[in-house]
Amino acid sequence: MGLALGELAVLFGCELRGDPDQRVERVATLAGARAGDLTFLANPQYRRQLPSTAATAVVLDAASAAHCPVAALISTNPYATYARIAALLHPAPVAPAGVHPAATVEPSARIAASASIGAGTVIGARCVLGERVQVGPGCVLGDDVTLGADCRLHSRVTLEHGVQLAERVTVRSGVVIGADGFGFARDRDGWVPVPQVGSVRIGADADIGANTTIDRGAIEDTVIGEGVKLDNQIQVAHNVQIGAHTVVAGCTGISGSTRIGARCMFGGGVGIAGHLDICDDVVVTGFTLVSSSITQPGVYSGGIPASPARDWRRMVGRFKRLDGTVARLARLERASGLPATGEHTKDGDDD
Amino acid sequence: MGLALGELAVLFGCELRGDPDQRVERVATLAGARAGDLTFLANPQYRRQLPSTAATAVVLDAASAAHCPVAALISTNPYATYARIAALLHPAPVAPAGVHPAATVEPSARIAASASIGAGTVIGARCVLGERVQVGPGCVLGDDVTLGADCRLHSRVTLEHGVQLAERVTVRSGVVIGADGFGFARDRDGWVPVPQVGSVRIGADADIGANTTIDRGAIEDTVIGEGVKLDNQIQVAHNVQIGAHTVVAGCTGISGSTRIGARCMFGGGVGIAGHLDICDDVVVTGFTLVSSSITQPGVYSGGIPASPARDWRRMVGRFKRLDGTVARLARLERASGLPATGEHTKDGDDD
Amino acid sequence: MGLALGELAVLFGCELRGDPDQRVERVATLAGARAGDLTFLANPQYRRQLPSTAATAVVLDAASAAHCPVAALISTNPYATYARIAALLHPAPVAPAGVHPAATVEPSARIAASASIGAGTVIGARCVLGERVQVGPGCVLGDDVTLGADCRLHSRVTLEHGVQLAERVTVRSGVVIGADGFGFARDRDGWVPVPQVGSVRIGADADIGANTTIDRGAIEDTVIGEGVKLDNQIQVAHNVQIGAHTVVAGCTGISGSTRIGARCMFGGGVGIAGHLDICDDVVVTGFTLVSSSITQPGVYSGGIPASPARDWRRMVGRFKRLDGTVARLARLERASGLPATGEHTKDGDDD
Repeated sequence: MGLALGELAVLFGCELRGDPDQRVERVATLAGARAGDLTFLANPQYRRQLPSTAATAVVLDAASAAHCPVAALISTNPYATYARIAALLHPAPVAPAGVHPAATVEPSARIAASASIGAGTVIGARCVLGERVQVGPGCVLGDDVTLGADCRLHSRVTLEHGVQLAERVTVRSGVVIGADGFGFARDRDGWVPVPQVGSVRIGADADIGANTTIDRGAIEDTVIGEGVKLDNQIQVAHNVQIGAHTVVAGCTGISGSTRIGARCMFGGGVGIAGHLDICDDVVVTGFTLVSSSITQPGVYSGGIPASPARDWRRMVGRFKRLDGTVARLARLERASGLPATGEHTKDGDDD
Repeated sequence: MGLALGELAVLFGCELRGDPDQRVERVATLAGARAGDLTFLANPQYRRQLPSTAATAVVLDAASAAHCPVAALISTNPYATYARIAALLHPAPVAPAGVHPAATVEPSARIAASASIGAGTVIGARCVLGERVQVGPGCVLGDDVTLGADCRLHSRVTLEHGVQLAERVTVRSGVVIGADGFGFARDRDGWVPVPQVGSVRIGADADIGANTTIDRGAIEDTVIGEGVKLDNQIQVAHNVQIGAHTVVAGCTGISGSTRIGARCMFGGGVGIAGHLDICDDVVVTGFTLVSSSITQPGVYSGGIPASPARDWRRMVGRFKRLDGTVARLARLERASGLPATGEHTKDGDDD
Repeated sequence: MGLALGELAVLFGCELRGDPDQRVERVATLAGARAGDLTFLANPQYRRQLPSTAATAVVLDAASAAHCPVAALISTNPYATYARIAALLHPAPVAPAGVHPAATVEPSARIAASASIGAGTVIGARCVLGERVQVGPGCVLGDDVTLGADCRLHSRVTLEHGVQLAERVTVRSGVVIGADGFGFARDRDGWVPVPQVGSVRIGADADIGANTTIDRGAIEDTVIGEGVKLDNQIQVAHNVQIGAHTVVAGCTGISGSTRIGARCMFGGGVGIAGHLDICDDVVVTGFTLVSSSITQPGVYSGGIPASPARDWRRMVGRFKRLDGTVARLARLERASGLPATGEHTKDGDDD
């Protein structure tokens, strides 16, 4: 039953303070843990919960270990070590290999014998599914889709024709990858659809959140780099490129042809305009509008936190009257006989 | 055919002014109503339409009844009374009981004889579906999902393994409940997935809008309280808790581990940061960023309304030059010999 | 194989500079083109790539033709002409006519012999599907849905009961049209659902993006005009009306009962409040809050671009202290003996 702390210490290179024969069976929070539970301390704001934890063992760093009332697995990166141990204690369920009788598979599709295809799933012509691929129920793969080994599609995922996933890509329920990009040419009598002839390529170990959409390229491909993690309800428009190991939180929208570097982090609800270049190692906090390219790594923001509604209305009124306020200031400067310092703006509307 | 006004007055405790034997067959707007229609007046901005309505009867309050040219059903809460009568006139269609032959149900699932399961739906092992549950076509229920009596899933709903719905929960098409939360631990060479071992519990009479996503908890459960109403395209991240009877409008995103109280109201397109506490009876207007906890009931805002683009560019320019503007003001204060009043800010950048 | 430049010049009324017998087989970008490729120049920022293109032919305007190193198809609207030629070179795949054996169709549905119904699709009672309609796999059509000739539903589309699509409407994967609007009447003990008895009508040639949602009307219908183009992940609430040829970019939310005119353009991530009137020919840039009606055509904005986080925090601090700043200004005006010019605001909070 469970795993011995001694084994875990060896497997994950931790220093163990405690009995190597004690076993843990499941994970829990510091506050909720009981005997048989493993927990962790990574975020300092929870340190006060450490002395009273009833867990069997805690994964934490050396500095915190002194205050640990139970067995301690000491790691330089407690959260990552916890994640790896939790994956051993709580392995993801694996569906049995084979094609469910209620699935519909085109004869020309090549599906590894070790792969699993769920009920109601539809797989198009010439698709290639690698070893141990798992496709859940209700998915739709168009023609010529390729899935590398160990990809996992949860339920009701659509991969339109020609979409390519490398190894170990996870796609969560409700995702649509490879829909036509939003491309229309204006004409006297409306909008002419521009054929979207590119596709979508997704790198190894990427993770795509529920109900996220990634459009196919207009001419060349939309490209998601290896190890990229996209949360739920994200929109990635045509021709976007996202660099390796970038993470994007939920409800963010990325407009067409924008290129994002590696190891970037985007908060939730961010809006990114089209045709931009964002360099590596950029962090954008939540609810920010990114409307021009970013060439320097660093942290960028653009959201104004909520205020009580009456205060907010007054602030907005002040904001919309800033021109008048600056004009009053300039008038005072003139009256005071001080040398003018009015900034000269591109609008040329100062002083 | 239809319902007699006398019956309705008795059923819903209204005072009736008019012929109790007149019948209404369907609902309509004040302006669009014809003979046989029932309509209502709740929003004063429509009062001017009352004198000319051709409805057979109007549900309204005592104050408006005097100006009603037709039969009046007088209620202290006309909109709620209208809603209840409309539900009698337009009952939701009920699918016949039984499992459609084109559905796929694991033998260990327990489904009430009065329940209805649509074509193409897939139901996992050990699921428990209560009396009169209706599951539409193309839904996917993972293993160990439980649905209380009278739950209704529209089409193409995914409930991942272990999700629990209480009685009378409505889930609209395209919803995904119980996908893994967005949890990754940073490591030298990328991001390690953190197993999401919690689930999602949804209280009685909750209503979840189309294409909304609610992630399962990392360790403990994500919890949606009874009577909560979520609109379409909402993202609820892992470990969130939402209190009873709170309503959230479309396109709002709620980040991980945030706790929201009871009877709150959120406008559309709101962004709520993670690890916050929002107390009961908070109202947040649309398009607001909530980035810190809220401890006082009341109305909060954060959106700046649109302006003509040229004006807006100038305002933004002013906004981004506020430091210079305040420095000019401070210089004038010094020159004027007035005692300084410059606020001292945490940035210490004043004067 | 492919198409001769001479034919294309005649078909699309272009002036051809080059050999009419040369053929093009596929489209490419200016930079990526090789022999046999057709490309285009519409956006001046790519003009520098023209002299070095290896394409067989370029669609461009007369002004640019002089610098074209290869065959030129000269058009007054190069992008639209390119779009039409690309549609000939890359025709959309057409599924074979007929109902897939794994589909479920109510006997009372009337489906044109030339229509195609995919595997796993479920079609309700009394649906009417016109000539050459294509419904992909995993779709769900409720009862009484009507699709005009040449409509195309990609995969996993839900059209709830009574939804009406005119001719040539494209609906992309994951879309939900006709879910109940978000209507609840407050009552002592929570919220009473208001039956949503209207439907949704969509005009000819409309295009609805992946995972977008359009709710049915509360009493009358939600109406999307002809030629309207909606991108992915858009929310359209009940009773909204959108005029002909309006385009809306991704992640935008439109609240209930708002009426939008014809030929409007909305950027991504826009939020539009309810019960508004927006006139024809309005352009709203991305990430803007529209909270009141717009009566004049023109361009409107409301998003503040990102700044480095430290600068941003200071700007927000200044913004939230604007009252104090204006009070300091007013004090200086008094001390200076200048006649007061303090604006008088509806808040009456000046000076």
